[in-house]
Amino acid sequence: MPFREKLVSAIAARGSLLCVGLDPEIARLPAPLPRTPDGALRLNLAVIEATADLACAYKPNLAFYEALGREGYDVLRATLGAIPRDVPVIGDAKRGDIGNTARQYAAALFDDLGFDAVTVNPYLGGDAVEPFLAYADRGVLVVCRTSNPGAAEIQDLPVVDDGTTVPLYEVVARRVQRWNRDGNAGLVVGATAPTELDRIREIAPDLPILVPGIGAQAGDLAAAVRADRPGAPAIISASRTIMFAGSGLDFAAAAHRAARELRDAIRQARSG
Amino acid sequence: MPFREKLVSAIAARGSLLCVGLDPEIARLPAPLPRTPDGALRLNLAVIEATADLACAYKPNLAFYEALGREGYDVLRATLGAIPRDVPVIGDAKRGDIGNTARQYAAALFDDLGFDAVTVNPYLGGDAVEPFLAYADRGVLVVCRTSNPGAAEIQDLPVVDDGTTVPLYEVVARRVQRWNRDGNAGLVVGATAPTELDRIREIAPDLPILVPGIGAQAGDLAAAVRADRPGAPAIISASRTIMFAGSGLDFAAAAHRAARELRDAIRQARSG
Repeated sequence: MPFREKLVSAIAARGSLLCVGLDPEIARLPAPLPRTPDGALRLNLAVIEATADLACAYKPNLAFYEALGREGYDVLRATLGAIPRDVPVIGDAKRGDIGNTARQYAAALFDDLGFDAVTVNPYLGGDAVEPFLAYADRGVLVVCRTSNPGAAEIQDLPVVDDGTTVPLYEVVARRVQRWNRDGNAGLVVGATAPTELDRIREIAPDLPILVPGIGAQAGDLAAAVRADRPGAPAIISASRTIMFAGSGLDFAAAAHRAARELRDAIRQARSG
Repeated sequence: MPFREKLVSAIAARGSLLCVGLDPEIARLPAPLPRTPDGALRLNLAVIEATADLACAYKPNLAFYEALGREGYDVLRATLGAIPRDVPVIGDAKRGDIGNTARQYAAALFDDLGFDAVTVNPYLGGDAVEPFLAYADRGVLVVCRTSNPGAAEIQDLPVVDDGTTVPLYEVVARRVQRWNRDGNAGLVVGATAPTELDRIREIAPDLPILVPGIGAQAGDLAAAVRADRPGAPAIISASRTIMFAGSGLDFAAAAHRAARELRDAIRQARSG
């Protein structure tokens, strides 16, 4: 099933816009788990089980698996195998390279690992994003305005485009609108930048937007929810707040509670 | 040994600015090799042996290993193990993510895989590059102006910075100068953009510059050589022209010949 349909179905089935990030940082594993790749996998499996009825999507960030070395691939595979089949999985990879190389990344992420969607970087231009977009049934979420403190340094630079001066992230949003020939593109916009998120939603009214930065990064939940549109969802993502909600024996129950609270806060903001 | 010293030593020892890209695309493997991860490794080992006296650096692009799936990691490891220890290895990864995640990528690339240098993407800003720069003995080559046909779409956008309007890639070059507190930063600028390369060298007189795009992408060799400075080398990189110089039984000899010709063409341009 194409990414967007699968996402919209999962949102409807669970009544949730919450995406759970699966970033098993070894140094932060709950005390009962060994600080090993196996411990990372056990945390992932517990978090998936504890949130299976609450998450409209899962989002493993590849960095946390690559940091595990040789065993990272197997941990990622086993993690993907445990995710309910009706829930889309976003590979947070933020790849960006020239066309010939981008095709290899797309093959790795879509053909080999089977992600429903991936995140990519816009800096190399449309021809570097095209090999991902060529997979018409997969989602391609282009990094637009990120949630980190230094995001503004490059992304907010004033750019002259079509006769007006706008921040670079606005130009990126405009370009992604143009690149989106098959309707499978989307954007990544951090919840820590609510004004920018509102503006980007105006520019791109019908693109799904992945909104990280809720939770540990203290993003603006109301702004994230405001970006939600029928058929073009806001995918509101939290990782550390859920993964590391508990540091002791209760880590799975704590993850469930943290995810439920976030899902409910999102629900309340949607109906309020 | 810090990346820059190791690089300068290897350049002096071999009288060569040639960096050999190790991108073993399965679909293009020479006929005598099986189109499998093992075939990819055998090509890499043959190319390394055939170019060991000609290359001042090697540059595996991670995409080609990730596309091999589970076995890609072992192919990369075995490849790294075959590279002469006095030659620096650049992990062409173009990673870019927020600080917490960038630290994981840096751990994967520097601690686990042991690269002497990596390529990174500037779009997320200085705090996303900082976790790489924190490894003071490793090189961090920031993507500035790339070699693909669509590079201009984002990188050439006119940006207002410090009161003047300049292309975005110039602002990136300026920022990398600023981020470079420990002297371990560098840039990536494609040889297909000779005017831009000249301009970037003016802005950043003392940064090493990785210059891909020679060979298959038909970049400007004279411009690449013009960017070379004592202590701040131009690392002139070719991949496909060398890896796939021969498609039959002679592939190793053909790779040697192609690398020697490129090394000599660079030498001639340097002395000319």
